[in-house]
Amino acid sequence: MTLRRDPITGRWIVNTEQAEQPQKAQALKEAETCPFCEGSEALTPAEIFALRPNESKPDSPGWEVRVVPSFSPALRIEGELHRRGELMYDLMNAVGAHEIVVETPEHIGNLSDLELAQIEKVVKTYALRIADLKKDERFRSVVVFKNYGGDIVRHSHSQIIATPVTPQNLREELSGSREYYDYKERCIYCDIIKQEIKQNKRIVFEDESFIGIAPFSSRFPYEVWLLPKKHSFAFETISEKEVSSLAVALKSILKKLQLLLDDPPYSFVLHSSPNLGERGERHGYWQTIKYDYHWHFEIMPQAMESSGFEWGTGFYLNPTTPEEVASRLRQVEVNF
Amino acid sequence: MTLRRDPITGRWIVNTEQAEQPQKAQALKEAETCPFCEGSEALTPAEIFALRPNESKPDSPGWEVRVVPSFSPALRIEGELHRRGELMYDLMNAVGAHEIVVETPEHIGNLSDLELAQIEKVVKTYALRIADLKKDERFRSVVVFKNYGGDIVRHSHSQIIATPVTPQNLREELSGSREYYDYKERCIYCDIIKQEIKQNKRIVFEDESFIGIAPFSSRFPYEVWLLPKKHSFAFETISEKEVSSLAVALKSILKKLQLLLDDPPYSFVLHSSPNLGERGERHGYWQTIKYDYHWHFEIMPQAMESSGFEWGTGFYLNPTTPEEVASRLRQVEVNF
Repeated sequence: MTLRRDPITGRWIVNTEQAEQPQKAQALKEAETCPFCEGSEALTPAEIFALRPNESKPDSPGWEVRVVPSFSPALRIEGELHRRGELMYDLMNAVGAHEIVVETPEHIGNLSDLELAQIEKVVKTYALRIADLKKDERFRSVVVFKNYGGDIVRHSHSQIIATPVTPQNLREELSGSREYYDYKERCIYCDIIKQEIKQNKRIVFEDESFIGIAPFSSRFPYEVWLLPKKHSFAFETISEKEVSSLAVALKSILKKLQLLLDDPPYSFVLHSSPNLGERGERHGYWQTIKYDYHWHFEIMPQAMESSGFEWGTGFYLNPTTPEEVASRLRQVEVNF
Repeated sequence: MTLRRDPITGRWIVNTEQAEQPQKAQALKEAETCPFCEGSEALTPAEIFALRPNESKPDSPGWEVRVVPSFSPALRIEGELHRRGELMYDLMNAVGAHEIVVETPEHIGNLSDLELAQIEKVVKTYALRIADLKKDERFRSVVVFKNYGGDIVRHSHSQIIATPVTPQNLREELSGSREYYDYKERCIYCDIIKQEIKQNKRIVFEDESFIGIAPFSSRFPYEVWLLPKKHSFAFETISEKEVSSLAVALKSILKKLQLLLDDPPYSFVLHSSPNLGERGERHGYWQTIKYDYHWHFEIMPQAMESSGFEWGTGFYLNPTTPEEVASRLRQVEVNF
């Protein structure tokens, strides 16, 4: 496994070289026993972390949220980065972490169908795993994401990938929000939140702590961003109170999408600050992140089939407007 | 229809607001008569351009390649750009062109199955349409692309979209190649070509004028880039001789993919210089493009299902190496 850098754009790609492994994952999907259910702990690799209120033993029943290594990891946890060149090209070993967060011991498919208290535990687990992985100086970025629906295992879970490089979209966001801060001395996301509240036509969810919006420049139909109202650059610094609010916000938005679009497949990605670490301290690049970056979730329901045009150009055609989307989602009543 | 700019990354999105129109396109797909076949000219909007060697009338039989407006255009050809702000957001009218290039009068599905002489006509049509669209000062970029397979009309065609903004991926390439030129005073694509010939392990196709490579940092399995060996920044300046060579190169690569992967769906996108125009002359940004940019095709077979992780992060996981891919494709013999 190697990481290769595109010499033109600086984008890093992982060569997972796991062409055979998806079969293993496929076999698991088709197995009659769900490997994520309580009691099936032996069917997964040894657990990395679990919320076990009664201090039950690892890899045994009694957990609330359980984190295990991916069955087919895209990156390897062991080893040195070994950065090197191949004439004009740059590459390094694909060192990183790839974990699965099993979000409930029960066989429930959609995060939106979990109890609020359970979603709080999931959110808390994200924060704990990110904080733990960031202790590893080799990892520059920790990304939490979820793919729901399609032919994916029907037991609510998300994934965490820690990478020794900053993913390209995060680099773009960091660079854009830094430029804005340099010019205005304000966080661009904080300004977006203020403007969205003022205009009040793209808001999907709002309470004291969080706001969900159909973003002005949505790439996909029913794309929703969920942001904390109070400026915060790093998700893992979330407070207890915010954990409870976030659970309500996530459940509300996902439930609205589920009801309006008939339980669509969806993905979400948590965008949060890269690992500052020691290297960060040495680089001016990182020093302003605390001020100019703002963590958020990007939720994309029923991600459309990839069109060659959009992949190839990065220029998205979206048949719906965020104002319509927000209006439709606001009308969906959710009670819990 | 509007174009909206993401205030963080600068990426432009088209709101096509055509939610109802795909049904029209779908009805056409399911129609018994193919609207792209010779004799069905009345089933398409009035033609924009055609190669008609015997000077037959527009919208009648007798053409070799025919260009018509898209049935469900993403951008409108009429009107002013009307750039404007909405508080901190930027938007403009979605003015542009969206054309369909019908690549053959015969009902043949895959470009790779056309005669070489016919592919030459297609390539020549691309160049003529790009040159014509670039005369329109409103358009900053003209992108030619093709989606083949899946549920797309089974009559070989490609599409052209002219936009008043530079697509994000092209912006990244322009910026990366400019930085490289500023530092080395060499075109990065020319350097890549030299290195690929020297290393000779990622070459899929090579002749006097063109080289096809599985790029070092391939995002997708079986991704292939096709580049002219002689430095050239703008596709529409292609010479007669290069048109013939390009037809051979395109047919060879597409045929190899078709044979090796059992006629897979694929997309390709032509990456070429944006419109320099008058505005270009005024901006230093554009003045170096002639030296530092290099047009090329990016071909992506069987574009995988979009994973939320890859969409959300721009960090791609590719299970194959370009060296394996090139070795497999080189072994496929094609004769024509």
